Amino acid sequence: MNALTKRMNPSELDQWSNRWLDHVEQALSRWISPDAPAGLGEAMRYSVLDGGKRLRPLLVLAAREAVANGVPNPALDEAALRAACAAELIHAYSLVHDDMPCMDNDVLRRGKPTVHVKFGEAQALLAGDALQALAFEILTPDASAIPEGVQARLCRLLAQAAGHAGMAGGQAIDLASVGVALNEDQLRHMHRLKTGALLEASVMMGAACGAASEQALQGLQAYGRALGLAFQVVDDILDVIADSATLGKTAGKDAANDKPTYVSLLGLDEATSYAQSLLREALNALHDTGLTHTHTLAALAERVVNRNT
Amino acid sequence: MNALTKRMNPSELDQWSNRWLDHVEQALSRWISPDAPAGLGEAMRYSVLDGGKRLRPLLVLAAREAVANGVPNPALDEAALRAACAAELIHAYSLVHDDMPCMDNDVLRRGKPTVHVKFGEAQALLAGDALQALAFEILTPDASAIPEGVQARLCRLLAQAAGHAGMAGGQAIDLASVGVALNEDQLRHMHRLKTGALLEASVMMGAACGAASEQALQGLQAYGRALGLAFQVVDDILDVIADSATLGKTAGKDAANDKPTYVSLLGLDEATSYAQSLLREALNALHDTGLTHTHTLAALAERVVNRNT
Repeated sequence: MNALTKRMNPSELDQWSNRWLDHVEQALSRWISPDAPAGLGEAMRYSVLDGGKRLRPLLVLAAREAVANGVPNPALDEAALRAACAAELIHAYSLVHDDMPCMDNDVLRRGKPTVHVKFGEAQALLAGDALQALAFEILTPDASAIPEGVQARLCRLLAQAAGHAGMAGGQAIDLASVGVALNEDQLRHMHRLKTGALLEASVMMGAACGAASEQALQGLQAYGRALGLAFQVVDDILDVIADSATLGKTAGKDAANDKPTYVSLLGLDEATSYAQSLLREALNALHDTGLTHTHTLAALAERVVNRNT
Repeated sequence: MNALTKRMNPSELDQWSNRWLDHVEQALSRWISPDAPAGLGEAMRYSVLDGGKRLRPLLVLAAREAVANGVPNPALDEAALRAACAAELIHAYSLVHDDMPCMDNDVLRRGKPTVHVKFGEAQALLAGDALQALAFEILTPDASAIPEGVQARLCRLLAQAAGHAGMAGGQAIDLASVGVALNEDQLRHMHRLKTGALLEASVMMGAACGAASEQALQGLQAYGRALGLAFQVVDDILDVIADSATLGKTAGKDAANDKPTYVSLLGLDEATSYAQSLLREALNALHDTGLTHTHTLAALAERVVNRNT
């Protein structure tokens, strides 16, 4: 039995997700203290809790499941839960800053007013900054909880994905690309950094919570890379075909902002087949890992590509 | 011979500082890549290089010197240099964000236009975000360079100092305190978080690059706490008595912004004696460490309190 023969159906994935999302929500709520001073804690909690698909945490946890190979380990399970939350905190902070007036100037996110609309720009700036720091703080509890080698590896993966060669770098390219005609290589490079790096790192953080072979790590990385790109292609498609109420954020804003997208570059039909080919690539990469517990990762990739929000 | 008998004179401290600052500048320049995309690298380098007193790096390196006790160790020396740069990156990012229009709206820093004036607000926001990530990235090179336990401890200290219970939390209190009459306890709490936490963490990161006793760690922590507060008291004094050209930033802005300060609370004379009493507290704490190589830390404390910029 390998990853491609054992399949997880949508309701099994829902069950798996719901169970883990409960843990993730509780952990986030425990770690984002409402006591942070002068309203900062409130703004941080508003930014993170009760919203979002939590794709990054689910990828961390599914990758941990793949490398755990059915053998529980409390310290590494705890490490994976922390990594799941840390990835979500980095994602959440990037949304808070990205929505600010000097960036995308967006007022609606997950169906609610954005953080700067609700709490003011200065508090939004600080909340984003504090969420980034918190991500690294929860990855590094005292030594008794999680082996320090795992802590260091998780910080390394997350920092590289968040920084100049990852998410922040991708945002800079995005900023510089408004009204610019990018070719497909340039668009792919931007997205690999802007959203792909953190999605890929989520998979690799889960993989770091276990003892995976070099072959398994390479397969998981290829899976993460294909999935990260597929996610963005589908995002571009949904920005065109979905409405704001379904998305929970302003639809059509890429075109309105004259931003290059896969749809503007390839057209809707070709973008849709590209997403499907990336899905096949992701599933093949899972097969190449040689791991047997990859069915959740496979089902997550299918959900990412076939989603409608 | 102990910390209070062996003294370092100002020219010896200059010599020590200049030697280390060369290393720090070279390391920062190597680690902040000019190749980060779309002008981001340029904005990051502008934010950090060629400016600032580098107090935090010097504290890290002097604390490493104290716990090394005269015995070099290449891996731990490298860890201390990385920690020194990481502390400076966190400080630099906080200045970039703090200067932005939605915060202090300052146009002059270290005698140069602030980052958002030079590169635009969006790039300033991203540069600050990327500098924070870079701090954690340089603390976590691959396992061969630095023991992973040290990497994890350094990330833990830095994340706690930067986040909601440290610098970002202090900034939030600062924001909420404009025009508010704080008492001395509240003002001290704000500064302990806003500037004190990172200064104290700098000392403790240096101490983490070695094997210090519990007694030594406690003394170093007390030193860092007293020095952190002294730094801020002197900052408040200089904001009143120095001019912008000497400071390299806008003088008198605390009063102009109706911000509470030690001078507004205690008056100039009492603020000055408070700074001196904190210096004595810091020097006594060094004595309590039982360490013999604390003369550089002592000289740095004296310089912090007796500086005129």
